[in-house]
Amino acid sequence: MRIARFSIDGTVGFGVVDEEPARDGGLQLDIIKGHPFADFERSGRRVPLSQVRLLPPVLPSKIVAIGRNYAEHARELGNEVPEVPVTFFKPSTSVIGHGDEIAYPSISSDVHHEAELAVVIGRLCRDVPRERAREVILGYTCANDLTARDVQRRESQWARAKGFDNSCPLGPWIETDLDPADLALMCTVNGEQRQLGRTSEMIRSVEELIVHITESMTLLPQDVILTGTPAGVGPLHVGDEVAVTIEGIGTLTNKVVKRD
Amino acid sequence: MRIARFSIDGTVGFGVVDEEPARDGGLQLDIIKGHPFADFERSGRRVPLSQVRLLPPVLPSKIVAIGRNYAEHARELGNEVPEVPVTFFKPSTSVIGHGDEIAYPSISSDVHHEAELAVVIGRLCRDVPRERAREVILGYTCANDLTARDVQRRESQWARAKGFDNSCPLGPWIETDLDPADLALMCTVNGEQRQLGRTSEMIRSVEELIVHITESMTLLPQDVILTGTPAGVGPLHVGDEVAVTIEGIGTLTNKVVKRD
Repeated sequence: MRIARFSIDGTVGFGVVDEEPARDGGLQLDIIKGHPFADFERSGRRVPLSQVRLLPPVLPSKIVAIGRNYAEHARELGNEVPEVPVTFFKPSTSVIGHGDEIAYPSISSDVHHEAELAVVIGRLCRDVPRERAREVILGYTCANDLTARDVQRRESQWARAKGFDNSCPLGPWIETDLDPADLALMCTVNGEQRQLGRTSEMIRSVEELIVHITESMTLLPQDVILTGTPAGVGPLHVGDEVAVTIEGIGTLTNKVVKRD
Repeated sequence: MRIARFSIDGTVGFGVVDEEPARDGGLQLDIIKGHPFADFERSGRRVPLSQVRLLPPVLPSKIVAIGRNYAEHARELGNEVPEVPVTFFKPSTSVIGHGDEIAYPSISSDVHHEAELAVVIGRLCRDVPRERAREVILGYTCANDLTARDVQRRESQWARAKGFDNSCPLGPWIETDLDPADLALMCTVNGEQRQLGRTSEMIRSVEELIVHITESMTLLPQDVILTGTPAGVGPLHVGDEVAVTIEGIGTLTNKVVKRD
């Protein structure tokens, strides 16, 4: 099931992407009664995807992100594969949705794309054992862990380099029925392929990351884990259209614009 | 004005610490109508502080913390004073209030206290110029930036070392009428002084930190900035009572307990 968050005529709602196409031949959403992180059902009332604006599919209280989780990417930046997963936060203010613009941050002149599988947490959890890790997951979406590479080189902690406004595009929706173990993920810029990898290349699996994180902190419903990026990261420029595609989920597209 | 957040009989509210003592000779709260981050007034209905449980005075969406902002503390850990402020996040799940217990985290055997002045943001802001920095501040409270020193030494990014559950005691209340430029701050453990400093020793002032942070990210009402700790950090043990006192604000006290 694919759960989207959207707005139409100023109203915000959730909808399930329908099996049947809309009259315009495109996708349509079956509007949800209730909330996807609690009890909900499909209402049978439908709206074409072309008529709504997609919003970030979750409003995370925190995003816990993992660095250097693909060996080839660690090496391309001249880093060792870390003994313990590199763990950092991105704040809620960094989140934008599919189709939203990335305003180029004034603190950087070297913003890089990083395509990543995002895990959406479905329930409050702490000290999750590996064999129960799948139970705390609601689903998966695409993420772009935008990174001000020049700031990251200068500052030992990455709060500004990876936490600037707009630095966490998420979307287009949450796919709930998916095995995350071996999915192709790709990043294109203006239609040209830049990153291509498979989640099977991850040094630590989704389950291992949930154990690692919840050993020290509570995860809340709607919290998001970013699982690291494969090789091929590179700069974005004003005017670029960057797209993250993950097998079985879909494509998250954002355009880079000049900040007002 | 001192604004406290409290619960009594299962109800949560805000109150202003009253000029007049309660009948029991202690402090009392004048209960607030409205919300301190919006329009509010004092109701004239009072409750003795001894009858309420103090809660964290804010519920931050993010805590932006600054490392090595006192030269003597940077040196005691063998670090240089950084050219750019070391900037990291603590998550909302790390916040506890005055009187709450610090459950010793299972990932560490070397948790240190770090007494800090906390700045409470009062309004949404971005790209704040230095001369307007005071306008975005609602007030100040005491913080303890608890740090798993052993984890911090092993992990390059500090999300787990400084983001574990309970790692951010805040309180006891927000003082709104205060000049943060030269306040004494102190940390005691079981009544013995461990840290003593003055905010005038900060390498970057409160105003400079607000400029530095909002250059890259939006701050929201209730967000908190931790401004760094003076020299004298050291380990806490189960059974310890740790207290952070800041001139003009008050004392934040927490007891360290074994995690269940």
